[in-house]
Amino acid sequence: MIKLYGYWRSTAAYRVRLALNIKQVSYSQQSVHLVKDGGEQYQPEYQSLNPQGLVPTLVDDGIVIGQSLAILEYIEEKYSQYPLLPSNVAERAMARQLSQIIACDLHPLNNLRVLQYLSNQLKVNDAEKSQWYHHWLAQGFSAFERLVAKWDSNGPYCLGGELSMADVCLIPQIYNADRFDFSMDAYPRLQEINQNCLKLARFQDAIPENQPDAV
Amino acid sequence: MIKLYGYWRSTAAYRVRLALNIKQVSYSQQSVHLVKDGGEQYQPEYQSLNPQGLVPTLVDDGIVIGQSLAILEYIEEKYSQYPLLPSNVAERAMARQLSQIIACDLHPLNNLRVLQYLSNQLKVNDAEKSQWYHHWLAQGFSAFERLVAKWDSNGPYCLGGELSMADVCLIPQIYNADRFDFSMDAYPRLQEINQNCLKLARFQDAIPENQPDAV
Repeated sequence: MIKLYGYWRSTAAYRVRLALNIKQVSYSQQSVHLVKDGGEQYQPEYQSLNPQGLVPTLVDDGIVIGQSLAILEYIEEKYSQYPLLPSNVAERAMARQLSQIIACDLHPLNNLRVLQYLSNQLKVNDAEKSQWYHHWLAQGFSAFERLVAKWDSNGPYCLGGELSMADVCLIPQIYNADRFDFSMDAYPRLQEINQNCLKLARFQDAIPENQPDAV
Repeated sequence: MIKLYGYWRSTAAYRVRLALNIKQVSYSQQSVHLVKDGGEQYQPEYQSLNPQGLVPTLVDDGIVIGQSLAILEYIEEKYSQYPLLPSNVAERAMARQLSQIIACDLHPLNNLRVLQYLSNQLKVNDAEKSQWYHHWLAQGFSAFERLVAKWDSNGPYCLGGELSMADVCLIPQIYNADRFDFSMDAYPRLQEINQNCLKLARFQDAIPENQPDAV
């Protein structure tokens, strides 16, 4: 059975839980506590699986994969039911572009190791750190909102009537924005998509608070 | 014909040039000067193509795509010759994981807009900025080196005898490391791969200094 190394509050692990739930692939979870004892992700045993010391890591049939988007592509290729990517080449490109706005340009700037660097090495205070956090959220969400609006789907999800990788990346990021008191007022379409997704049991089962290691 | 909006020194645009060259797909380039006049990427005309105001953007047959990895996947799907991804599912996952170590966790922390934020908003001085830059390079390259060593290929490239998306992401990042006086001494396998790739005409044609907008 698939084993997912993650952490309840990690948005990158949340993406993978969503993908597995959407595809109705069963899996077990192994919690990697990112804060306790200086961070379990830095322990040699975990680093031998994931040399970056980041979550998530997926282990399936002896195959070990880090990086959430690589994991999503793997899941998509191996488990074809309930596709995360449309069949049309232009739509696939848009699903990936939207996903990467979150996973390559927004989240990496706001994750734990970067916030720790800002505090510890650069002595950035909490107010400046919050501004930093909100700045990159605004940059990413406004591009995302513009692209989705331009796509002009009337459906409930990012690309229209079907869920895709873009929803899988967006919903965890909005969860994080809420957690860091970021107002979503400027992004009505993203709010709408968020509400539509969170109505689904497959999303509810993946939210951080519903994980076994949630505090 | 494909049109690539980029900038000679952008490592993300460099990745796309490499992919197109490897596949021997012809394209024209449109330079988006990232510094002149406050940055051409912020002009409304460009932002209508790429709402993030980042390079590269690829336009092919009316399809407009931002985000370099989404562009690489598109090129791979549309132009099947000289594949950038192996056929085996585990190898594909490794190629993507390596690519994303660069594109999702290393480069986004060191790109122009982030360095500008550090200087302008956080008043970080040049020495601290250089430490920041080197810190994230070391984090990314050491994970990359460990994974490639573990993969244990004896071939000239990241995954063995065939070029892949991982080489397309690695070589531009090493170019950038050199530019910012980062020593590659701790990464012998990455140096070797870099030398092997740069022997190829398809790589030479893509290097920043050989682009029409190089200064």
